[in-house]
Amino acid sequence: MDSNILKVGIVTVSDRARRGEYEDKGGPAVVAELTEALRSPWEAITRIVPDEQDLIEDALKDLADELGCSLIITTGGTGPAPRDVTPDATHSIATRELPGFGEQMRAISLKKGIPTAILSRQCAVLRNSTLIINLPGKPSAISECLEAVLPAIPDCINLIGGPLVETNPDKVRQFHPHKQH
Amino acid sequence: MDSNILKVGIVTVSDRARRGEYEDKGGPAVVAELTEALRSPWEAITRIVPDEQDLIEDALKDLADELGCSLIITTGGTGPAPRDVTPDATHSIATRELPGFGEQMRAISLKKGIPTAILSRQCAVLRNSTLIINLPGKPSAISECLEAVLPAIPDCINLIGGPLVETNPDKVRQFHPHKQH
Amino acid sequence: MDSNILKVGIVTVSDRARRGEYEDKGGPAVVAELTEALRSPWEAITRIVPDEQDLIEDALKDLADELGCSLIITTGGTGPAPRDVTPDATHSIATRELPGFGEQMRAISLKKGIPTAILSRQCAVLRNSTLIINLPGKPSAISECLEAVLPAIPDCINLIGGPLVETNPDKVRQFHPHKQH
Repeated sequence: MDSNILKVGIVTVSDRARRGEYEDKGGPAVVAELTEALRSPWEAITRIVPDEQDLIEDALKDLADELGCSLIITTGGTGPAPRDVTPDATHSIATRELPGFGEQMRAISLKKGIPTAILSRQCAVLRNSTLIINLPGKPSAISECLEAVLPAIPDCINLIGGPLVETNPDKVRQFHPHKQH
Repeated sequence: MDSNILKVGIVTVSDRARRGEYEDKGGPAVVAELTEALRSPWEAITRIVPDEQDLIEDALKDLADELGCSLIITTGGTGPAPRDVTPDATHSIATRELPGFGEQMRAISLKKGIPTAILSRQCAVLRNSTLIINLPGKPSAISECLEAVLPAIPDCINLIGGPLVETNPDKVRQFHPHKQH
Repeated sequence: MDSNILKVGIVTVSDRARRGEYEDKGGPAVVAELTEALRSPWEAITRIVPDEQDLIEDALKDLADELGCSLIITTGGTGPAPRDVTPDATHSIATRELPGFGEQMRAISLKKGIPTAILSRQCAVLRNSTLIINLPGKPSAISECLEAVLPAIPDCINLIGGPLVETNPDKVRQFHPHKQH
């Protein structure tokens, strides 16, 4: 195992995608965004889970603790509806909260004219040496939110002991204040 | 009982208004704002309570659980002073936090040149199928904060199982991404 | 003891500064900023502590409870790295959270083009009648964050029962909505 390869867990949270009633669009949208954004080697480990808090927690713990993902991105289940439980699962298995991610993702969506961004409960946390970020389910919102936070992700992964992550300068502003030479 | 009528609890939190030492201005300001903003039928259930955490909690629980309010708006008691306990009462009876409301209301007030908006602890939460939003006590601040969050309220009430809420397009930008036809 | 003099605890959190391996730059930067910003009398009580949560908690409690500081400013230890534990210590000894400070400090740094500001976990809380604010460790970031929140500090100290604080109008916008005449 090459520990320089970034392992990324990508978790689609959706009852309907899990039951195969419709095609998962969130997971592939995350993969497409990261493919454009990352220049250094990485591999995706994808999961589709229903909107059940304990099953989401299990998936996050497995990807972080057993499979060694330095980054996990969830898509879906971040709103106020009763079946939206992704942030609850995320907070529940966190060792630390990173409130700036949720603040910034909501602020960006509001600026783009989506007033219901206020309702999003999406968050980011650490679970030991794994950064976990909740994204919305809609591909357009995924792109918007991921762009807003991508410039901070390589530095965070570095600070929590993960591999050096290089981003594509055409796509993401490079910012590596703590990069070790 | 017509379940299509939106029930709105309006809770003025103020020791002095409760003792009748001065006229409640916050509650009527909320009623006036909602009267302008809402086009679909609604009814207000108003309460004036002192700045006591347990009495505020009792009022919120009664309005949510017994009287079936889909929306509760509090006014007053959101600052850092020891007698300001409205956010504490609100967090304490919440089933879910909606951090975007407090973030956005503070950001809007800061943009309008009120640096002490940083001190506001106002929040919004769900208690089961009730949306509870803290507003400041001053009528000018009530108007400012409510305008900032009103476009997201109908969608939230819809998502937590409440009645369809229509807003006045002259006053509030319509935004109903999840409206069921 | 003149209770009209503002007592300010200034806590540098840094393993290396504590061991004397390098000069503390954060603490002196905070002192310099406050010297420019405050016009009314104040005195600084400075501490240098290592990045150990229990020792940071002890310093904060001592400055608040025993030494009667109305304001405590920490510098350093606010990021996502495992040794960064200042916000954890701060939340742990808080009687109340003031979420607006962290939101605003992160937003200001983001606006100034620092995308990794998202990673900062810096917060502000009350511990009874003491306002505690986390600042970053870098002098440039200290200046930026302190400027963003200074206009709200005198009013907060007044509301929690501390002395009247006057700021230098050339440096800080005066804003005292609750000043008692």
